[in-house]
Amino acid sequence: MSLAANNLGFQEQFELIISDEDEMNIHEFLNNLNISDVATLVEDNEDHATKIIASLSVHRAASTFKILELNVQKQIIHELQPLKTAALLNELPADDRTSFLEELPTEAVRELIKLLNHEERKITLSLLGYDEGSVGRLMTPDYIAVQSDWTIAEVLEHIREVGKDSETIDVIYVINDNGQLVDDVRIREFLLSPPERLVSELTDGRYIELNVNDDQEMANQVFKMNNRVALPVVDNNNILVGIVTIDDVLWVANEEFSEDMQKMGGTEALEEPYLEISILKLFKKRVGWLIVLFMGEMLTATAMASYEMALDKALVLSLFIPLIISSGGNTGSQASSLIIQALTVGEVTLEDWWNVMRREIVSGILLGTVLGIIGFSRVVIWAQIFPDVYGAHYVLIASVVGISLIGVVMFGTITGSMLPILLKKLGADPAVSSAPFVATLVDVTGVIIYFNCAYLFLKGTML
Amino acid sequence: MSLAANNLGFQEQFELIISDEDEMNIHEFLNNLNISDVATLVEDNEDHATKIIASLSVHRAASTFKILELNVQKQIIHELQPLKTAALLNELPADDRTSFLEELPTEAVRELIKLLNHEERKITLSLLGYDEGSVGRLMTPDYIAVQSDWTIAEVLEHIREVGKDSETIDVIYVINDNGQLVDDVRIREFLLSPPERLVSELTDGRYIELNVNDDQEMANQVFKMNNRVALPVVDNNNILVGIVTIDDVLWVANEEFSEDMQKMGGTEALEEPYLEISILKLFKKRVGWLIVLFMGEMLTATAMASYEMALDKALVLSLFIPLIISSGGNTGSQASSLIIQALTVGEVTLEDWWNVMRREIVSGILLGTVLGIIGFSRVVIWAQIFPDVYGAHYVLIASVVGISLIGVVMFGTITGSMLPILLKKLGADPAVSSAPFVATLVDVTGVIIYFNCAYLFLKGTML
Repeated sequence: MSLAANNLGFQEQFELIISDEDEMNIHEFLNNLNISDVATLVEDNEDHATKIIASLSVHRAASTFKILELNVQKQIIHELQPLKTAALLNELPADDRTSFLEELPTEAVRELIKLLNHEERKITLSLLGYDEGSVGRLMTPDYIAVQSDWTIAEVLEHIREVGKDSETIDVIYVINDNGQLVDDVRIREFLLSPPERLVSELTDGRYIELNVNDDQEMANQVFKMNNRVALPVVDNNNILVGIVTIDDVLWVANEEFSEDMQKMGGTEALEEPYLEISILKLFKKRVGWLIVLFMGEMLTATAMASYEMALDKALVLSLFIPLIISSGGNTGSQASSLIIQALTVGEVTLEDWWNVMRREIVSGILLGTVLGIIGFSRVVIWAQIFPDVYGAHYVLIASVVGISLIGVVMFGTITGSMLPILLKKLGADPAVSSAPFVATLVDVTGVIIYFNCAYLFLKGTML
Repeated sequence: MSLAANNLGFQEQFELIISDEDEMNIHEFLNNLNISDVATLVEDNEDHATKIIASLSVHRAASTFKILELNVQKQIIHELQPLKTAALLNELPADDRTSFLEELPTEAVRELIKLLNHEERKITLSLLGYDEGSVGRLMTPDYIAVQSDWTIAEVLEHIREVGKDSETIDVIYVINDNGQLVDDVRIREFLLSPPERLVSELTDGRYIELNVNDDQEMANQVFKMNNRVALPVVDNNNILVGIVTIDDVLWVANEEFSEDMQKMGGTEALEEPYLEISILKLFKKRVGWLIVLFMGEMLTATAMASYEMALDKALVLSLFIPLIISSGGNTGSQASSLIIQALTVGEVTLEDWWNVMRREIVSGILLGTVLGIIGFSRVVIWAQIFPDVYGAHYVLIASVVGISLIGVVMFGTITGSMLPILLKKLGADPAVSSAPFVATLVDVTGVIIYFNCAYLFLKGTML
């Protein structure tokens, strides 16, 4: 039952069956597929998307719906009959419903919330009350809670009664009379113990909890470090208000990293897959930053104009401008990617800035020296082979190239490393200090460093 | 019990207790901490790392050990007594042991494998036999398998007997007499059913499996789409050989994205946290790519030398070189980040290359036209304000700038988007086509495009 092999198979089968328009046949065919295969079918056959969802049992419809792309979800909600929409929304797990509603305009959210039954509406409204990017938005209130003085047998009976609604029964939460979290116990502990023992004999008071206001990125770290499939979420009074399951965190991690990658490349985050977004939208997401960078880069023309006299006297200097400035840009991009990554996974915090600065100054000197030596040698060697190109003062020119490289590279590592930290300090996303952004900053300064070095070395000879 | 608040607390307590050197006290204190807190202690007190691990029960020692940073793990294995090392290694879950051993030199691995007992050694050697980055390296053989003709009561009894060794009992696997996978059933299904029912009544034959040779990145996608905490792993004969748990996939996802980010910035992947890696190692990881890029960028000096005559006649052309080439670099970085990200999450596959190419040609024309118009206007407006700078032929110069921008930007989007696809096609990691790499490629071509445009427009007037 390889996924790839089947993929072709069920698409073809589907086309046969859908052309028949036999409702029962469609229902039966869909019922025999995995949820992820149904989702693939829906996304590959957008014309039939709503029909497919409507043909599923409401439970399977909800499971499929929650893993679809946002644009397909919107289409389905738009096309589905109101009664079916209500059933579907009520069946969706609270956390998935919240993340879908988050993406819609306020007006549409208000309409859809009306379709929910009283209880689901209350849950959704409360989840929507937490900050975007907070653990509160990620949690589900569907968990099983028990009390310390229950026996294992009572717990198992309780699970049989309410387990169907719970998002996970892999971990059971122990609370006190005030609803405060006392402990979490894995279901295996209950299964491996005699039925007459008390819950309190299994608790050890060692649990890890998240706060509703915690950042989702932090939840990712806590899951990584603690080997759990679900974590309890408490409010500031330690009252258990929900749980977060690890599969939701995996989605968040994937999405955050995708956004970071896009920002680091100098694009606004695309909200749709690359091949599905319209060219016009793709253009809009890209052009903004490009214009900003272009405006910044125009300063190089201004800077160079003020050194035009130097260029007029020693035209040979112009040959190395791209080499010098791009070396600064490259080291700057390197440094910024390293620091953005370290900030993202929490290896570097704002308090480490001086530590980072020290390391980047040393790195800049080392890297600059290596490139400086190569640059110096390049000019000297070329001058031996083609004596006409650089003229008599080739050693001086080589020195200008070598020394400016050290300066420009050091400026690159410092700017590249400090900018993400500064942005984070200001509350912005450090990933915005993309490679292109740092490169542009360093280009302008590179021109200035280069020509000042030239004046220093060539004054009285060539300038 | 907020994590942050406690952090300060237990570090201070630890310092008090460790200075006493009372073994029992240390043991008791550590026993009352969460595993993740113990891990924090170990990493914050590297001098005492081995002592802390040695003071824990072997089970807790293993749980702590597996979430430590690699360098601390190495230190502990180096310092621990051989007997304790053997106990620790034997207790580690097979998948975590494999990923630790993977990072060590072959010589050390051979020594450590000798310490394992017969059974664990067999498991580890077989796991090490799969390709790096494959699902085989990620799986654990600790799962519970049952047969279709068992009753629920028999299954629960079996779980009580062997459950202690299993990495997860949240999902139980149903196999046939040949060891082939028949179905997976969540533990909740067993708990919610009467004890006398047969396993076969719970199976529906709908399961998702991974192949041992599948890519770990693919496992991430399958987990995302299927809402499972564990997935069965089969060989090519559909025989169940292990399971992969979602928490291991979360680690892989975090690590892969970190590596991708570093590569996209033009660094080799760091294997240690930024602040802990020695400056020398950091230098080594960065300098290689920088030298390659520098060598590439030297071609700009060569290219420009061949246009020196043109520069001599129309020095004003030199002013716009940084602006032109960096615009190509920026659009190229943008395109490459977008495509790398889309390839990583599977939104774009190799077969889509022509689709991508078409979109990037259109995007390149649109983006290039916008920047071209801005560039053209910049020159014309400046010429009105400062008539001396660009001379009488300023409209021609503005046209050269505008038209070359369209060409360079289009070259940037095409190169930036096709390079990751080409690298993937060749079996390399597309993330290597980092922003700096694309920028360098485009810089050299940018110089050539620019000067050829200049010849076209200025022949007979300025050139």
